[in-house]
Amino acid sequence: MNKGMRPREAYEWLLTHHKESAYLGSVRALLAWDQRTQIPPKGHAHRAQQVALLTKLLHQRATDPRIGEMLEILEGSEFTQEPTAPEAVNIREWRRAYEKARKIPERLAVELARTTAQAESAWEAARPQNDWAAFKPHLEKVLELTREVAEALGYEREPYDALLDGYEPGETTARLEPIFARLREALVDLLGRIQNAPRRPDTSVLHRHYPRSAQEAFAKAVAARIGYDFEAGRLDPTAHPFAIAIGPGDVRITTRYDENYFSGAFFGTIHEAGHAMYEQGLPAEHWGTPMGEPVSLGIHESQSRMWENMVGRSLGFWRYFFPEAQRHFEALKDVDLEAFHFAVNAVEPSLIRVEADEVTYNLHILLRFELELALLRGELEVADLPEAWNEKMRAYLGLTPPDYRDGVMQDVHWSAGLIGYFPTYTLGNLYAAQFFAKAQEELGDLEAMFAQGEFAPLLEWLREQIHRQGMRYHPRDLVRAVTGEEVSPEPLIRYLNAKFGALYEV
Amino acid sequence: MNKGMRPREAYEWLLTHHKESAYLGSVRALLAWDQRTQIPPKGHAHRAQQVALLTKLLHQRATDPRIGEMLEILEGSEFTQEPTAPEAVNIREWRRAYEKARKIPERLAVELARTTAQAESAWEAARPQNDWAAFKPHLEKVLELTREVAEALGYEREPYDALLDGYEPGETTARLEPIFARLREALVDLLGRIQNAPRRPDTSVLHRHYPRSAQEAFAKAVAARIGYDFEAGRLDPTAHPFAIAIGPGDVRITTRYDENYFSGAFFGTIHEAGHAMYEQGLPAEHWGTPMGEPVSLGIHESQSRMWENMVGRSLGFWRYFFPEAQRHFEALKDVDLEAFHFAVNAVEPSLIRVEADEVTYNLHILLRFELELALLRGELEVADLPEAWNEKMRAYLGLTPPDYRDGVMQDVHWSAGLIGYFPTYTLGNLYAAQFFAKAQEELGDLEAMFAQGEFAPLLEWLREQIHRQGMRYHPRDLVRAVTGEEVSPEPLIRYLNAKFGALYEV
Repeated sequence: MNKGMRPREAYEWLLTHHKESAYLGSVRALLAWDQRTQIPPKGHAHRAQQVALLTKLLHQRATDPRIGEMLEILEGSEFTQEPTAPEAVNIREWRRAYEKARKIPERLAVELARTTAQAESAWEAARPQNDWAAFKPHLEKVLELTREVAEALGYEREPYDALLDGYEPGETTARLEPIFARLREALVDLLGRIQNAPRRPDTSVLHRHYPRSAQEAFAKAVAARIGYDFEAGRLDPTAHPFAIAIGPGDVRITTRYDENYFSGAFFGTIHEAGHAMYEQGLPAEHWGTPMGEPVSLGIHESQSRMWENMVGRSLGFWRYFFPEAQRHFEALKDVDLEAFHFAVNAVEPSLIRVEADEVTYNLHILLRFELELALLRGELEVADLPEAWNEKMRAYLGLTPPDYRDGVMQDVHWSAGLIGYFPTYTLGNLYAAQFFAKAQEELGDLEAMFAQGEFAPLLEWLREQIHRQGMRYHPRDLVRAVTGEEVSPEPLIRYLNAKFGALYEV
Repeated sequence: MNKGMRPREAYEWLLTHHKESAYLGSVRALLAWDQRTQIPPKGHAHRAQQVALLTKLLHQRATDPRIGEMLEILEGSEFTQEPTAPEAVNIREWRRAYEKARKIPERLAVELARTTAQAESAWEAARPQNDWAAFKPHLEKVLELTREVAEALGYEREPYDALLDGYEPGETTARLEPIFARLREALVDLLGRIQNAPRRPDTSVLHRHYPRSAQEAFAKAVAARIGYDFEAGRLDPTAHPFAIAIGPGDVRITTRYDENYFSGAFFGTIHEAGHAMYEQGLPAEHWGTPMGEPVSLGIHESQSRMWENMVGRSLGFWRYFFPEAQRHFEALKDVDLEAFHFAVNAVEPSLIRVEADEVTYNLHILLRFELELALLRGELEVADLPEAWNEKMRAYLGLTPPDYRDGVMQDVHWSAGLIGYFPTYTLGNLYAAQFFAKAQEELGDLEAMFAQGEFAPLLEWLREQIHRQGMRYHPRDLVRAVTGEEVSPEPLIRYLNAKFGALYEV
């Protein structure tokens, strides 16, 4: 019935169809935000039903065969002549999403949803009990279904690529392995030097009393100053911090407060503000289409990590904000700037990824990437996972987890079926270092700007180079377009060596 | 294609169809709650789009012709044999809703939505400017479309009945007029006696300093004590207080704080808690079907007004709560119980409906009912509305509005197209008095219970008699089932005469 349809009509149909889906998706985002910040205890059962219905409707819409018919009319038409023009980008991504959605049989999608829901509950119950035996069969089942998903999606070289591509479009294992190997080597070397360093920071100042209301006021003031728009967002407390886009003009962040620790809420807020500033900077006129969406998890993480670490943990940043911090916190009155800056950059191998510093963080990720890959390749059984985990912890971080809880069972990801997701954290750090180096090259001494409270030049550069591009490029193409270089570990290695070499005098 | 379908299958289809619509409706409720309590300023445009899409989807679902086909299979089948059994009730109400939805042509629905949106904006802008001339053409257009709606819906005797039935199923102008006339006469008489009374309350105590945090703590404590379940709800601040059901286990309320006035936030909270306790008491197993829904606006209002006034403004209630109020508020330390109770029951004719006391409140409503009716009957032109308003204000309340702002332009309802809605407020007060008198008859001295902090007997009685019935009965049938009597103004008149006769010694 669409045979006689012209490309313009087909494009308009796809636009309307996907924008309506995007509105429904943004409604589901609000349900998620509310569930994690506002919902009363007895509201959860109903919320699960609301989310399940929207998910069902969105899946039906994503696999509507009319999408395929319309795309066929458009592909090869004048709408796809200029590959980075908005229409061509949208058509490219609609096709990508349609193929992915159609390739997963309904039975598999349903089984995966049920299995991961059960596995997540099992993980929540088993982790506090340190009960690996109870969790193991769930993880085995998730892995089995994940393999099925990879087969259904298809791949050229190996199953892991099919998963990776879902989180970081176009990325492959073959390209990641040498980059990650080089990074691991450099990090292990830097960490070794730091552990034998002549000086150490005094981190006890970070564990003094920091009243919650002052933490909130300070974090809000700083987030606003670096460019997070509170007229288009809000900050709320939660157990697990996150940033979430409800729509243009409404991108919310959350954090978690500990009155006896400065860094958690503060750097958590800056991290989430980094994610949110990316969303706030997407082109609103393209909202609801790929041209208005973020590129990938890795590019998203590059924004959060840049603001958290390269900006928020720089000396220039604290030259500007430390006096204000001292006005907010009695605990900092007798602390000097350099000592504080050294403390918030302390490097210390630890068991838990989410608490790791800039140097050790990626070692936690590389370990997970290597284990996931071995599992997918059939080189490692779930039964042998704890021992493999501990071996790598010893090799990279010199630590042996005393239990499963703070070892192999620490993350929710695997129970939730998020296999192939971890590498995007490290990719985010790599991209961030590449972008930051380029920005510095083009804008001049960024830290000197931070010391004057000037964050707008960096944000505007990111807006122009990255945020306003939407999904015009896949990650590797974006990195090339922005920096003129391929994805590389060297800028991150240079940045870390320079920063921590100076701090620790190694 | 459904010709061979058995009633059981048809019923299951309707059940699934309507429950899915109900989930979407409950999602829209969360969007509304968030919009009025949480949303950042720049989020409104996107929110309007989200709501518009859900509204469109819900309208499509409500007019799906398969509903009619399924209902035909069921009507006259074994599913409708016992008229007050859940299946028969659901079928009856699904038919009712389907006919109403189908009778409004899409063109009219769209035009009405656009016109009322414009009229509401115009009202918001014009009211502060006291600009009747700017608002008048909008109201004329709304009235014209409302007449069209009434014609489309159909009626037996007069157009107003078609509107009324949308808010209060089964209610008619012919039955309301004598009831309201009798009530008006009695209220004008009581008010006259009060205005010549030998004693007056000292209301200045209510205008002392009441810190916001203490108001919130006290209102929450009282709402919880009378039976509002905070595990299945929450209280937030808003400009215009409301109660909203997101779903079973999630019924939220809001209030507005004025640090220089005790009554607004406190009685507002109790009023909204009354609405919310009704929703919290609906049968969860029938959620998403008429058997799990509230009966009408009037029955809803009967619950809020009973808790606010018959419970919350009773002497027994304050015998129990006044010592706690004195602990919360420095301002009450030197006030005695009887003086406070008299103050919160002060009767004073005023211009503004939402600030009116128990005696004058219904006069504000009767005035609006009479004007709406005259407009719909073509006996009054919009151009003559201000003068008609002022005449009735003088006749019933002895006041002449000094301007339009606090006269004919004070309510949002008419601009929003809510014509035929006002009578449900007074019906709520009538029902409340009838229910309360019956509860007292069955349970014994309610005020003596309140004085002991015993609110559970009344709530449980309401749960059993009203809340758990869902939409089993239309309002008049429910009143008859609960009280054994027809809807009548006499119980309210007796209640008001007794209470205010004693307070004012008249």
